[in-house]
Amino acid sequence: MNIDQANTDAVGRMISARPMLTGVATARDVIPGMRDGLLLHAGPPIGWDRMSGPLRGAVIGALLFEGLASTEAEAIERVEAGEVEFAPCHHHQSVGPMAGVTSASMAVYVVENTEGGNRAYSNLNEGYGKVLRYGAYAPEVLDKLRWMNEVMAPLVARALDGLGGIDVRALLAEALHMGDEGHNRNKAGSLLFTKHLAPAIGEASDDRSAAAGVVRFLGDNALGVLNPVMAACKAMADAAHGVEGSTLVTAMARNGTDFGVRVSGLGDDWFTAPAATPDGLYFSGFTAEDANPDIGDSTITETAGIGAFAMAAAPAIVTFVSGSPSDALNATLEMYDITVAEHQHFTIPQLDFRGTPVGIDVRKVVEFGVTPRVNTGIAHREAGIGQVGAGLVRPPIEIFREALTAFAEKHGV
Amino acid sequence: MNIDQANTDAVGRMISARPMLTGVATARDVIPGMRDGLLLHAGPPIGWDRMSGPLRGAVIGALLFEGLASTEAEAIERVEAGEVEFAPCHHHQSVGPMAGVTSASMAVYVVENTEGGNRAYSNLNEGYGKVLRYGAYAPEVLDKLRWMNEVMAPLVARALDGLGGIDVRALLAEALHMGDEGHNRNKAGSLLFTKHLAPAIGEASDDRSAAAGVVRFLGDNALGVLNPVMAACKAMADAAHGVEGSTLVTAMARNGTDFGVRVSGLGDDWFTAPAATPDGLYFSGFTAEDANPDIGDSTITETAGIGAFAMAAAPAIVTFVSGSPSDALNATLEMYDITVAEHQHFTIPQLDFRGTPVGIDVRKVVEFGVTPRVNTGIAHREAGIGQVGAGLVRPPIEIFREALTAFAEKHGV
Repeated sequence: MNIDQANTDAVGRMISARPMLTGVATARDVIPGMRDGLLLHAGPPIGWDRMSGPLRGAVIGALLFEGLASTEAEAIERVEAGEVEFAPCHHHQSVGPMAGVTSASMAVYVVENTEGGNRAYSNLNEGYGKVLRYGAYAPEVLDKLRWMNEVMAPLVARALDGLGGIDVRALLAEALHMGDEGHNRNKAGSLLFTKHLAPAIGEASDDRSAAAGVVRFLGDNALGVLNPVMAACKAMADAAHGVEGSTLVTAMARNGTDFGVRVSGLGDDWFTAPAATPDGLYFSGFTAEDANPDIGDSTITETAGIGAFAMAAAPAIVTFVSGSPSDALNATLEMYDITVAEHQHFTIPQLDFRGTPVGIDVRKVVEFGVTPRVNTGIAHREAGIGQVGAGLVRPPIEIFREALTAFAEKHGV
Repeated sequence: MNIDQANTDAVGRMISARPMLTGVATARDVIPGMRDGLLLHAGPPIGWDRMSGPLRGAVIGALLFEGLASTEAEAIERVEAGEVEFAPCHHHQSVGPMAGVTSASMAVYVVENTEGGNRAYSNLNEGYGKVLRYGAYAPEVLDKLRWMNEVMAPLVARALDGLGGIDVRALLAEALHMGDEGHNRNKAGSLLFTKHLAPAIGEASDDRSAAAGVVRFLGDNALGVLNPVMAACKAMADAAHGVEGSTLVTAMARNGTDFGVRVSGLGDDWFTAPAATPDGLYFSGFTAEDANPDIGDSTITETAGIGAFAMAAAPAIVTFVSGSPSDALNATLEMYDITVAEHQHFTIPQLDFRGTPVGIDVRKVVEFGVTPRVNTGIAHREAGIGQVGAGLVRPPIEIFREALTAFAEKHGV
């Protein structure tokens, strides 16, 4: 068995994947296996009993949104009565930032890898303030979700139809030349996304006030493109999954309690350990005491060679996640040690247009004792509150050791 | 006389200026001294006999646009008969990229320095392809100018009214953190500009197709914000002009034949010498043989501490103007030697958020023999053709020596 060759094949599929954002649809209509009463969540599998505050908050919010409960207490009752099913987004070709909770009625982005034929999905980004993905579920949170479903989603869907889709890989390549890293800094990407959509949204609606409201919401949300970017990264990573003999990481995800990884040559097994709490900068009035452990599927960006792996392209991000521009440069440089390739499409001007480090090799992580770097938002540890900051984190090294042991056992090495 | 103190005062006014884009109006209605039969042009004063091809081409186009001539031959006849007046944009509180030709009927951006009270103006950016500013005057050029005047300008004007203006200094500060340098690379700034305007344009019009057309034109023009940025830089530079005893450069401009500078403490005199031809990258089918000497008022950006002075913030620009990312870094570093301050509002993430070098001191240019760096577009040397490339250039050092001599004579030093 040639592991290097298997990894080269796998990373080649990841790099050559061409994720196109083709539409917006209702989750139950497009996500395989999606059904009423099923809630998708970020990270590896977890039951209600072990869920952290922000994930519980998002679950409560989603049940209220679906009309499956009318109060917080009723929502908890239904969960405890076993009437709600949970599954990782990743088990349904999906990803969601932070809590990642996606229910059957929610609008989702549809991304198609036109090179490999696989699809991926993500919910819509809610912007700032009190939002479900950080575990808030106040009436204003649900109102915004309803507006997104009823006003925004149909207009964006019609706009995407009119445009014939948006090439997310090309958008990301451009954004990396404009100071984004594609995970925590998506300012340029979100503006590119808005500029593609804005005229098409204007043409798609005869309600100019509604259209202007959607365009303003998109333009003012510097994270607006994160969700389609995550779905694009999921499509790229899935293209590399299932290559026999490959030690490439094809998913990294956190549910707020555990950090889990999947490996290309190890099927659908998760290797998990308790998630760390990010180091970072806190919003006024909050401290590290308030922080929940690491949460969200957004580490799919690092899995696909952007995010913290492309941080050298985004020196201004340090005002948000802490550190200095040279730390940002070093974050990228370090990741070359644990990856198997340099990205052909994602390049970093600051490094003379060198390709981003891509394709995390479990063997290299264990050999060098260097875990992947991750940029992330920080959720309050209690349900119902929201974001308290942003920072840096790494997965626990044990999960890579366990994965390598499983790989060795599987192949009798 | 304390020259250092005078320069500190002057650069302080430049830095603290707060240019707000407040409107779009017709040149004759707002530009002081603007009248029918007067054409403003880039650079220091020049007559028809010494004008280069691209400036002549733009003059012909403007006369056709104004209906003052119906053919190229008739336009030239009118000029040669002395029926057309010429004046630098700079003599009318205005600036224009490349040929900079602005006529009485053209729509212009209105920028107000809310700190100093002075105003500045610039024409609207025409985007790519055959455009007046590069000396083209084919029917398609005039058609686009008419569309800009009749469709785009009124909608942008109403949108700006609705928004209460756009803070160009804040926009530039953000764009410098997104890989722009504000002169030849305005990708991020133009997207920020579009995101501000797009919803307001949608709200301002009941013709959704017209509105979408304007939003698409703005979104697809990565130089769209250059003209309001130039007017903003003119407003900042003018705020620093007229400080007795100051050796600060307050205007650098080229008319395609001569490069000229003005100095804060030397009134309205221009110091000029023949403009050099830029070094750069040429579009397919063109070579340095086709290049016109340096042209345009866009060097007002470098005068105000952005453009090539902020090039360290824009490593990706080298794909457009030539060189490597380290050249871009060194361009900025070198400019600290000939400037008197670091900008408080314009910072460079790559240099640990150091302020851009701002306030060119004629004394330092002469003492160190280091002339200001300039990023620029390159026009074809013949009228009627257009852009052939983009590159780097510097003003001739003689003009700084002459200015310093004039300063010494004035003050009997």
